[in-house]
Amino acid sequence: MPDNQVLISEVGPRDGLQNCSAIMDTETKKRWITALAASGIREIEVGSFVSRKLLPQMADTATIVAHARTIPGLEVAVLVPNLKGAQMAVEAGAHKITLPLSVSETHSIRNIRRTHDEVIEEAERISALIASLPQDQRPHFEGSLSTAFGCTLEGPIPEAVILTCAERLMQAGCDEVGLSDTTGYGDPASIRRLIRSVRAVVGVENLTGVHLHNTRGLGLANALAAYEEGISTFDCSQGGLGGCPTAPGASGNIVTEDLVFMFESMGVSTGIDLPSLLEARQILAEGMPDETLYGFVPDAGLPLGFKQARATVPAE
Amino acid sequence: MPDNQVLISEVGPRDGLQNCSAIMDTETKKRWITALAASGIREIEVGSFVSRKLLPQMADTATIVAHARTIPGLEVAVLVPNLKGAQMAVEAGAHKITLPLSVSETHSIRNIRRTHDEVIEEAERISALIASLPQDQRPHFEGSLSTAFGCTLEGPIPEAVILTCAERLMQAGCDEVGLSDTTGYGDPASIRRLIRSVRAVVGVENLTGVHLHNTRGLGLANALAAYEEGISTFDCSQGGLGGCPTAPGASGNIVTEDLVFMFESMGVSTGIDLPSLLEARQILAEGMPDETLYGFVPDAGLPLGFKQARATVPAE
Repeated sequence: MPDNQVLISEVGPRDGLQNCSAIMDTETKKRWITALAASGIREIEVGSFVSRKLLPQMADTATIVAHARTIPGLEVAVLVPNLKGAQMAVEAGAHKITLPLSVSETHSIRNIRRTHDEVIEEAERISALIASLPQDQRPHFEGSLSTAFGCTLEGPIPEAVILTCAERLMQAGCDEVGLSDTTGYGDPASIRRLIRSVRAVVGVENLTGVHLHNTRGLGLANALAAYEEGISTFDCSQGGLGGCPTAPGASGNIVTEDLVFMFESMGVSTGIDLPSLLEARQILAEGMPDETLYGFVPDAGLPLGFKQARATVPAE
Repeated sequence: MPDNQVLISEVGPRDGLQNCSAIMDTETKKRWITALAASGIREIEVGSFVSRKLLPQMADTATIVAHARTIPGLEVAVLVPNLKGAQMAVEAGAHKITLPLSVSETHSIRNIRRTHDEVIEEAERISALIASLPQDQRPHFEGSLSTAFGCTLEGPIPEAVILTCAERLMQAGCDEVGLSDTTGYGDPASIRRLIRSVRAVVGVENLTGVHLHNTRGLGLANALAAYEEGISTFDCSQGGLGGCPTAPGASGNIVTEDLVFMFESMGVSTGIDLPSLLEARQILAEGMPDETLYGFVPDAGLPLGFKQARATVPAE
């Protein structure tokens, strides 16, 4: 991706809705995703294939994937905790599958009840499943290093542990790894440091995305640091919806609206039309009336005389 | 100042309180300033010498300056709109005087009813006043370029206008100029660009501080960009109190608590003890019960295993 462009990966329909107690109905999800894509978002994590009992918010993920696949040019991503989830993702036709591996083993066990060895075994099984598919039906497979900047249960995780996890995910057959600040512990210096260390192990081309939270207000500063390190894919959530239910006190993804505004202001094109993005927020607000939506740009509005990096409203 | 240290300049008692409709009583102001200084803050803008009719919140500034001067090691700063204010500041014994010059002439006229020429004349008169004082009683004199990143009335301000303003302030006798994002229009790229341009005109040593707002959520990202450009003094406000009353929709200074957390996390020492800083916030919250206080760190708390860049709690 060129220096002056980034890929905004909207994770609200997954990481956002999954952390709300209310359940957004399937039709509203579809309308929201359609509106997000219409604003120019080219990758959306639309759901996760997890136990319906544990996360009833995600029970309609197959239906949502089917809908999202009808939107031209949209990369349809899902999260899966294991092989079973990956099988469902493949069946539904997801373009991208993300498997989280919490570098904090305590958090991994608490979150998905698996040790590092067990998650790596799932990664190997998922890779084998993908390899068994015809070439043109293989989803992109990312291993996400969660709690990479520290864990609310363990505190800081030794870098050697993180690098081992990254290396093992690649060896298990992932196409790339991502770095997740699940707990909002990262800062611009640690973001830079870890990106460099992980890239030294897996290769620059195999770490292109970060998933940052805004728990302590550093989300955009951390995104800036990551961008300056050459990261080109940024997860974020409309209205800052979401967080991590098993990490107490850790809530709040980076707000898509503010992140897009930052990049566009800097002359870095996101391909997203900000007024259209703010319209999509209305669907979220109406669909989840009891949720607090975050973001400064939606309240303050765009600066007088503001011009986006490049006008790229997709044709209807 | 060494690379791994910054000076946090708390402007809450001035920029914060000045923008609240309620008035904090003098004793609470004193307690708050004392608590801020006790947390390790070494520069506080404690008030402004302005018309009591226009800003009754600032009517006790002379008393507050006198109190703040009793705190050992504290740089006591005030804002003045004109010579008369500077005379009062000198009389009260302020260590630092800031005169704002809005690079948007429309905003300047709206805010302090003066054209650029008239503000420059005031700067010359203030310089003459300071020069007339014995050497050891001369306050530091800063000219602050406000609305430097755009104006809610004029939009973007041509760089040539800003550079002319900077040069004229220095010629008028200011010791340095500062850059103010009064409206929250700045972004990391424009912050870097303007710092470089202004320094090319006034010299690196004559632009060391920035005053950033968080109106559109970019405050910390902008501060990071400024830090990376070599800026060492950062204005901010506890609880994000404040903004600019004459720029509609523009509210919210950078939150001191989050800014200090960012720098300390990065290993950049602020000299401020975060738990003590959070205690000072309680005094503000109790003193201004109707004001919304911003900040993520106060809600989320410090990360497990968090260590500050350097333990520097001042002795009682």
